[in-house]
Amino acid sequence: MDKKQEDSRDLLRDVISLLENNKLLDLRELLEEYHIMDIFDVMENLDEDMKIKLFEVLPIDMSASILEESGPEFFKSLLSNIDQEHGKNILEQMSLDDLTDILSEIEEEERHRIMNLLSKEDADDIKELLVYDEDSAGGIMTPGYIEINKNMTAKEAIDHMRENALDAETIYYIYVVDNDEKLVGVLSLRELITARDSVIVEDLMSENIISIDVEEDREEAVRLVSKYDLIAIPVIDKHGVLKGIITVDDIIDVMEEEASEDLYKLAGSSEHERDVAEDQNATPLQQVTSSVRARMPWLIIILIMGLLSTILLTKLNFIGTDSTYVKILFFLPVILCLGGSIGMQSSSITIMTLSNKDMTSLNNTLKEVLVGIVTGIFCGLIGGAGTYIIINNQSIALLVGVAILINMIFGATIGAFVPALLKKLDIDTSIVSAPLVSVILDFIGICIFFLITTMFL
Amino acid sequence: MDKKQEDSRDLLRDVISLLENNKLLDLRELLEEYHIMDIFDVMENLDEDMKIKLFEVLPIDMSASILEESGPEFFKSLLSNIDQEHGKNILEQMSLDDLTDILSEIEEEERHRIMNLLSKEDADDIKELLVYDEDSAGGIMTPGYIEINKNMTAKEAIDHMRENALDAETIYYIYVVDNDEKLVGVLSLRELITARDSVIVEDLMSENIISIDVEEDREEAVRLVSKYDLIAIPVIDKHGVLKGIITVDDIIDVMEEEASEDLYKLAGSSEHERDVAEDQNATPLQQVTSSVRARMPWLIIILIMGLLSTILLTKLNFIGTDSTYVKILFFLPVILCLGGSIGMQSSSITIMTLSNKDMTSLNNTLKEVLVGIVTGIFCGLIGGAGTYIIINNQSIALLVGVAILINMIFGATIGAFVPALLKKLDIDTSIVSAPLVSVILDFIGICIFFLITTMFL
Repeated sequence: MDKKQEDSRDLLRDVISLLENNKLLDLRELLEEYHIMDIFDVMENLDEDMKIKLFEVLPIDMSASILEESGPEFFKSLLSNIDQEHGKNILEQMSLDDLTDILSEIEEEERHRIMNLLSKEDADDIKELLVYDEDSAGGIMTPGYIEINKNMTAKEAIDHMRENALDAETIYYIYVVDNDEKLVGVLSLRELITARDSVIVEDLMSENIISIDVEEDREEAVRLVSKYDLIAIPVIDKHGVLKGIITVDDIIDVMEEEASEDLYKLAGSSEHERDVAEDQNATPLQQVTSSVRARMPWLIIILIMGLLSTILLTKLNFIGTDSTYVKILFFLPVILCLGGSIGMQSSSITIMTLSNKDMTSLNNTLKEVLVGIVTGIFCGLIGGAGTYIIINNQSIALLVGVAILINMIFGATIGAFVPALLKKLDIDTSIVSAPLVSVILDFIGICIFFLITTMFL
Repeated sequence: MDKKQEDSRDLLRDVISLLENNKLLDLRELLEEYHIMDIFDVMENLDEDMKIKLFEVLPIDMSASILEESGPEFFKSLLSNIDQEHGKNILEQMSLDDLTDILSEIEEEERHRIMNLLSKEDADDIKELLVYDEDSAGGIMTPGYIEINKNMTAKEAIDHMRENALDAETIYYIYVVDNDEKLVGVLSLRELITARDSVIVEDLMSENIISIDVEEDREEAVRLVSKYDLIAIPVIDKHGVLKGIITVDDIIDVMEEEASEDLYKLAGSSEHERDVAEDQNATPLQQVTSSVRARMPWLIIILIMGLLSTILLTKLNFIGTDSTYVKILFFLPVILCLGGSIGMQSSSITIMTLSNKDMTSLNNTLKEVLVGIVTGIFCGLIGGAGTYIIINNQSIALLVGVAILINMIFGATIGAFVPALLKKLDIDTSIVSAPLVSVILDFIGICIFFLITTMFL
């Protein structure tokens, strides 16, 4: 929303001016009016010193919430720059699942140092959470739930809930356990507050619990929450003991990650490539390296399968002629395929990057040209060597290698250029790009092939 | 989860046996133990008569919840088969946004008939909801929210909430309006129940409201709910008047739809094709027609651009020869491109269908072969005619047309076969399919091209 973006710019200007003039009380008052996510946005645009100054002003609970959203780098730098006691208080207020996620990305030594700042109870919880695979239900659960014994009365349950509401991620479901800590029922806050005080929880609770095993894939948690329209789902171990809950906001985060992972797989790349592509602090070298790394496996598979198909074509030799010209023709599919594939990779990544960030299309195109050159040199060398092995002819090997190189550079460039151009013309890039890019590349591929063939022979 | 699936099969068996033996009281008792989504799953596997019998047994609120999840066809058939008074009671209990969604898919006459069964208030609400575009925030909002006046006390607010809790989709946020119905604040249930009775709502509420305009795109609602970790977001009109709310379960549904829409666009198909592909009641004819319709536009674009590139190649004529053989070669890119494109469409749709439904891969492959034949005949005719116009040679035109037809049939078939085979071998289809399919198709395309050329000339 434009209005929101404007608000956000205004807020950033105000915050910077207040920070520069050291009007810290005014600043604190201003910030208390805003949602922590808006403050987080502002903070992302401040330099390191100002960020730390801002944290000294913010109320502890807001600091904790903002830190939950931040990456491990900022987390470390903040904790080493603020007063240790203040840091301790912030850590205390952080949600344990988010804190665990951040700690899991920090080197072990540093992690131990930070965990020493925590209460024994929290540290133990985190140690337990760190054990689970991040793709499992255990990896995204939080211990911040409210648990009551099935023998309590409704009144006792409400009192217990009020006492523990502060540490809980959600108070809308209350989980009921038996004396062995096994999950036996669930109560919604709605049911609890509309019940008579003396009713026993066991008679009030629903025994039909939708839960998930701690080892299960996190996508199963998404499926269950989505199917049963839940706000949180309890996580149990193999003995049925309640270990944590997964709240709907974490489910939404997982859905976003999985959806873009699917898109990246289909495009022949990886999530990691996009993360780097959208990271404004990544150097051009990092960007190119991550793209080359993500795409090379696919390209190598295509190259090898393409060369195998060439061998088959040579053996079949439909046309029954031995002319060099026909022999070269058999390498056309592998050359076209490589150009087309990197073109698809490049255009898919460009479409996704352009729709999510205000990355300039010029920078992106330059990056893709470089990626095309690097992958082209690799594939050209392997393709040339393969050709030499197949038909034992140096000049044809050279020809195929050079054709692959040039075609892949064009592939990456056109793949980045077409969606950027379409976006400028206000055409839906995701629909038109794929067929347009593939036809252009097949055309260019054949031109290059004929041109080089004419030059070499 | 395997356990869940087993449970579901057991439940289905029990339900059928109780229905057949007319043990309706036992059935009702059994069903009350289950979540409505589980009953919904069971119902999907019953025949029409049993479904209606089941609805006569179910408690009204469960019937309403299940009907919210069902499609317009079943909705109509149920309402015309049960007692009108019973139908009225069920409609009364349905969530208005879901009811609106179903009604929007029903023919106008039938819709009017159903709306006459509703209370005046509900009918008016639905008429208002039907106005909004289904892709807008208004199109997914529900009027089932709790609204209080800013001048109420906490005690009055709690009383009001308890009275209205039944009709509300969520009671976890309570929206505060001024005397002009303008949204001025929001209160969480958490804040309300922990407040002193006499506090005025205005002093308790948070004025920092994240809301969305009724005309705004529904994807903006997803972005806001996801960013601010909300359980519901209020929808306002341009005067700031509260019109409805969007709850997080509807946000999750939108996310799922949008994610698969993105995948379909990237694959060169449409959401509609998948809906038909996954609809177990769709006839094979419907399946093929919907696939042909979704894919033809893309294929035609590729065909036209391919022919344009052929014209260019002919004009450039690098090799400087007039031999028929070289002339035919210029049509190779368009032939390869068409086969490759339908192969990509077919494999993408197959991957998505296989991962979501227990569709047999044999049926799917047969369907794809038919789609390949139909689209192949279309593209072959157009391609042949185009070739004749470009080089004015009947036999080459015939050759190109036949090559396109055969290549597209292979394309669709291989595209459906490879992911199914990979799945059997337990290999991640989404990663390996695309490069494998494209190399196989380029190889087959060149073989077909050479074979036909040798035969024709």
